[in-house]
Amino acid sequence: MHRQSAIVGIGNTDYSRASGRTERQLALQAARAALADAQVEPREIDGIVRYSTDSTSPAHFARSFGASTLRYYAEVPFGGAACGAVIAHAAAAIAARQASVVLVYRALNERSGIRYGRAERHFGDGAADPVAAGDQTPAGSFSAPYGLLSPGQVMALWARRYMYVNGLTEADLAAALGTVAIQQRAYANANPAAMMRDRPLTMAGYLNGRMIAAPLRLFDYCLETDGAAAVVLVSADRAGATRDDAAYVLAGGQALRRHAEPLTVYQRDLLHTAPTSAIGRLYQDARLGPGDIDVAMLYDATSVEVLLGLEVYGFAAPGQGWRYLLEAGISLSSPLPVNTHGGHLSEAYIHGMNHILEAVRQLRGTSTSQRPGARHVLVGVHGASSVILGRS
Amino acid sequence: MHRQSAIVGIGNTDYSRASGRTERQLALQAARAALADAQVEPREIDGIVRYSTDSTSPAHFARSFGASTLRYYAEVPFGGAACGAVIAHAAAAIAARQASVVLVYRALNERSGIRYGRAERHFGDGAADPVAAGDQTPAGSFSAPYGLLSPGQVMALWARRYMYVNGLTEADLAAALGTVAIQQRAYANANPAAMMRDRPLTMAGYLNGRMIAAPLRLFDYCLETDGAAAVVLVSADRAGATRDDAAYVLAGGQALRRHAEPLTVYQRDLLHTAPTSAIGRLYQDARLGPGDIDVAMLYDATSVEVLLGLEVYGFAAPGQGWRYLLEAGISLSSPLPVNTHGGHLSEAYIHGMNHILEAVRQLRGTSTSQRPGARHVLVGVHGASSVILGRS
Repeated sequence: MHRQSAIVGIGNTDYSRASGRTERQLALQAARAALADAQVEPREIDGIVRYSTDSTSPAHFARSFGASTLRYYAEVPFGGAACGAVIAHAAAAIAARQASVVLVYRALNERSGIRYGRAERHFGDGAADPVAAGDQTPAGSFSAPYGLLSPGQVMALWARRYMYVNGLTEADLAAALGTVAIQQRAYANANPAAMMRDRPLTMAGYLNGRMIAAPLRLFDYCLETDGAAAVVLVSADRAGATRDDAAYVLAGGQALRRHAEPLTVYQRDLLHTAPTSAIGRLYQDARLGPGDIDVAMLYDATSVEVLLGLEVYGFAAPGQGWRYLLEAGISLSSPLPVNTHGGHLSEAYIHGMNHILEAVRQLRGTSTSQRPGARHVLVGVHGASSVILGRS
Repeated sequence: MHRQSAIVGIGNTDYSRASGRTERQLALQAARAALADAQVEPREIDGIVRYSTDSTSPAHFARSFGASTLRYYAEVPFGGAACGAVIAHAAAAIAARQASVVLVYRALNERSGIRYGRAERHFGDGAADPVAAGDQTPAGSFSAPYGLLSPGQVMALWARRYMYVNGLTEADLAAALGTVAIQQRAYANANPAAMMRDRPLTMAGYLNGRMIAAPLRLFDYCLETDGAAAVVLVSADRAGATRDDAAYVLAGGQALRRHAEPLTVYQRDLLHTAPTSAIGRLYQDARLGPGDIDVAMLYDATSVEVLLGLEVYGFAAPGQGWRYLLEAGISLSSPLPVNTHGGHLSEAYIHGMNHILEAVRQLRGTSTSQRPGARHVLVGVHGASSVILGRS
């Protein structure tokens, strides 16, 4: 499926703490913006890929949106872990000629509606209680009954484990994760769409943030957002005829390693969701290496995921991600700018769909924190799912 | 994706009214049987496609089954409407090289656990109440509050509409649907795995069945079953090297037409889920026409779906399916044997996965009601999703 499809449209709603709209309205609004950007009519949509957790179903688009017959629709489970996969599935469907114009979206009232951080509903798909949550992921069966319920708790244990394995002090970790939080906030301050556009963050401010789940502080955590984002993919042939700044899918895929299911595992030794073989295949499929990536969007429900992502994708050596952050950082003057929209920490929390949109903006040259001449962008959830996009 | 993948393993549990096992155990048992049949090791599985409604997640296979890293997993919504799509998605993933060995399964304690016919949980995915049900499918929002909750109710309205549009009397309809019920029961009587293997059915017995939702009688309805079924797909290259009776995927896809979402629409004029263009594409992709199909497995939550399926797939002219049933029937002496395992009405209700298994048996020549020399088998949910399988 290498270069057989491309993202030709992106769209998003405003990002807020209280949208005043239903998730369905948000989904349709973002989709409409993406279609307008792509210059594609609703009736042309014949494929839809959604996050399983999304409350807007393909049937809503078939009925409410003027879409004609959908001939491909699929879902990807495990919340934000799907953010690379939804693009990969769309690209595979186009490559296999199961669909020709595919809409991918994520809409959520995560602040005014169900707040995942409150452990109401986040593990599985439609799982509304901890028992059902554990039901979706085996490890959860053993931890959920004891109150380990939210990703924010689990990731604190990842951070602890990382410290233990790699010999970090609390100060070492705070310096590394603070770098993520501060530099992403600086990106958000340049991004008018970001929820944190007007709120600068210093290291002192970061360190003053209250502990949420030690060793993670307030600003290690993502925002809670009402909003939606959407993209439209078409075949490479059509993309080439449509616009000269289309974002081609070079490679994409998932990795669900044994004993490493999303969000519930907190005692694995390697702290890397994907084995190196899976990442090797990703780069091989893209015909690139880590050194070819100009900008990365690393999933950041918490800052520690960025740290792990740097290692998983080969930007930093295993166990050295924290030193890499201290020495190189993730700003525009760094070798690898990361989350140039502000990410989940400071732009909005749209389960990684806003990361996909920012990747496209970097390839178009329209980011508010543009890396000049960016040609290859990786979006990844520390290996759980990943996609590499590139210019023509 | 034409002929780029094939089913090389099938497996199922026993079918019962009380399995005494969890759905997870059933899923693993069926998967193990399918892998043994395929001579594939669990660690070779790198892709999983499941029904969104299944309670066993990819994470369970990654953890409990000895699978290595999964690099592709996807889900398909809308219950049994997924039965062709799960195979099509697996085939697309293999064609796009997103996975090489894909497991597809469906496990449910539909009799001893959640009984869909009781309207507890059937519309959406994890929807446990009518309001949530309506939430998944727009039309449901208008009908669920008034008590139109179960597929068995909705399909009765389909049957009424069919009678009205095509000028059938109650006797005409009963004669046509009775033919479906009786001939599928005869298949089940020859199938030791069928729940109804020991219970013959005559037209008198059919007509004596109590009305469940008029005009549908007891034996127009599917069974309630505890059980599981699974298949293993590999690339065509590997399939060819593995066995000479592999079931190749010739074509497959979905159709979600505007205003025709699964299970909630009861007033559409045409009563056909898929437009003729979608079915035309299916046959075109398969490089076959309706006349080339040797056996069909037509989804049968109720007998009326078989009637509609005959028309949707071009085996009978629109509005003439009922006459076709009266004149030609669906037995082994008919032009097109249908549901030769007994189907949902008389073998077991495994959301169409048992139909996929029977399609493979027909191609292998191992059905208990074998059509000699069967080369092409269609499995379809009156167009909502479909797959055509063929011999090498």
